[in-house]
Amino acid sequence: MGRLTAVAQTGRVAPGKPIGVLCFGGDLPVELAARALQANQPVFMVGFRGFANPAIETYPHVWVKLGQIGRFFRVLRQNAIERIVIVGALTRPSVRDLSLDWLGLWDLPRIIRMLRAGGDDSTLRRVVGYIEDRGVSVLGVSDIAPELLAGEGQLGRVAVGAEQENVAVGLALLDALSPFDIGQACIVLDRRPVAVEGVEGTDAMIRRVAELRSNGRLRVKGSRGVMVKAAKRDQDLRVDLPTIGPRTIELAAEAKLAGVAVEAGKALIADRAETLKLADRLGLFVVGVRRV
Amino acid sequence: MGRLTAVAQTGRVAPGKPIGVLCFGGDLPVELAARALQANQPVFMVGFRGFANPAIETYPHVWVKLGQIGRFFRVLRQNAIERIVIVGALTRPSVRDLSLDWLGLWDLPRIIRMLRAGGDDSTLRRVVGYIEDRGVSVLGVSDIAPELLAGEGQLGRVAVGAEQENVAVGLALLDALSPFDIGQACIVLDRRPVAVEGVEGTDAMIRRVAELRSNGRLRVKGSRGVMVKAAKRDQDLRVDLPTIGPRTIELAAEAKLAGVAVEAGKALIADRAETLKLADRLGLFVVGVRRV
Repeated sequence: MGRLTAVAQTGRVAPGKPIGVLCFGGDLPVELAARALQANQPVFMVGFRGFANPAIETYPHVWVKLGQIGRFFRVLRQNAIERIVIVGALTRPSVRDLSLDWLGLWDLPRIIRMLRAGGDDSTLRRVVGYIEDRGVSVLGVSDIAPELLAGEGQLGRVAVGAEQENVAVGLALLDALSPFDIGQACIVLDRRPVAVEGVEGTDAMIRRVAELRSNGRLRVKGSRGVMVKAAKRDQDLRVDLPTIGPRTIELAAEAKLAGVAVEAGKALIADRAETLKLADRLGLFVVGVRRV
Repeated sequence: MGRLTAVAQTGRVAPGKPIGVLCFGGDLPVELAARALQANQPVFMVGFRGFANPAIETYPHVWVKLGQIGRFFRVLRQNAIERIVIVGALTRPSVRDLSLDWLGLWDLPRIIRMLRAGGDDSTLRRVVGYIEDRGVSVLGVSDIAPELLAGEGQLGRVAVGAEQENVAVGLALLDALSPFDIGQACIVLDRRPVAVEGVEGTDAMIRRVAELRSNGRLRVKGSRGVMVKAAKRDQDLRVDLPTIGPRTIELAAEAKLAGVAVEAGKALIADRAETLKLADRLGLFVVGVRRV
């Protein structure tokens, strides 16, 4: 009952016509589909070849190639899909990676402009605009399965303890960086930020700290420090949710961090059960925090 | 005459007793000594073994080891040195790297606290405090040879041009990061920050961008983008001047940046002639900018 209440509160979309799930890498598309069906929301999976996990085939699905834009909109029309959600890991493709069909070629100038836009944010916003211009609305994960987002407070078995201070420094730093279109994660150790994410991505940033610790440039004993990940203030959460998963925990353990903090209600924990189990086993905390 | 005027304006210290130059890595200690002598300011070089360039031996000098604290203060006293300046590249030493003499051993607890202080800033402030507590005042490069600091405007032959916009974004970002004790440099490309310096240092940050461009994670054609380096608002410029040098230019060229911007009046250009010549040859701009 508790979950149903939460669902009503967060405005989960009404059942009825299927929602198109644009599936990119990882298990998240499948998790989302399972949650949607539990809530009686039919889904139709659109798997992008070379990105999506074949496990999406458990659900009504079709495979398309990146760039088959005419085919993509035809598939949506044929299946009466008026609302979609975009989920899964996607690295920014180059024009070369696209298998363009007639509509893709027709719209090539616009597509090139989208891909060349300044930041990831701008690109994603333009992609959303392009889709919505064609009469399809783009939803966020929070509209379909809000329970996939991180809740507030201690999420695994390990308590945050004294690291709470580092979490606060990290959130303040991300807040300061928020007006800039840049990765929204950082690592704070002994109240000092030691790494800030740029375009290299969260994984590479954590690996950097692992390296700095192993080569002695960062001399700290024991498991200390936290990786903090939050959304930018104006981030379009429909297409760009801050996400952590099992790999984040593994890397954080290699960097000898004490834990990971994510923004409650805005960040996604992919493979939640596995992620939290791994964190418990490796002795790392996972905490959901609210920005003030 | 122009230079003498500049000197008077910036409050160069009066000639008289020698100034102790605590020499760490690179050519800067020697450059500083040369400038001081031109201004009739006698110097006495204190070379730290394993760090300082043997070229310091051109001037009155003595060699000490890191940790010979008793010997260090004895040397200053014997040479009537009441004011020192600390110059050159220094990586944070570990207690193991110290060759402690009696005073070093006596003060070991305090020394350990200094080295273990949170950020580089805190460590350096504590080192300055430790020295000044013993009656020796610590000056900045700007007190002795202000002409070594970057001036304002175009410094080499290449003009900043349209990159001025990226410089402004970089300065704004560094300003936002200023309250945090973190490296004060970033790289901005097409108005978007792509890398922010953490404890890895400026060189590693630039190398990261070179890598992101060569592996296609950052797809941009031609030489674009700027590395911006500035002081934190409350940085103690006596011990921690933001510095660029020939290596910065080489790395910026490898990362296919258009140029480098430093804070005028607060950043140091090591090996200035060589740095600017190299920038000219590689087609990179070097610009001094003021923060508003």
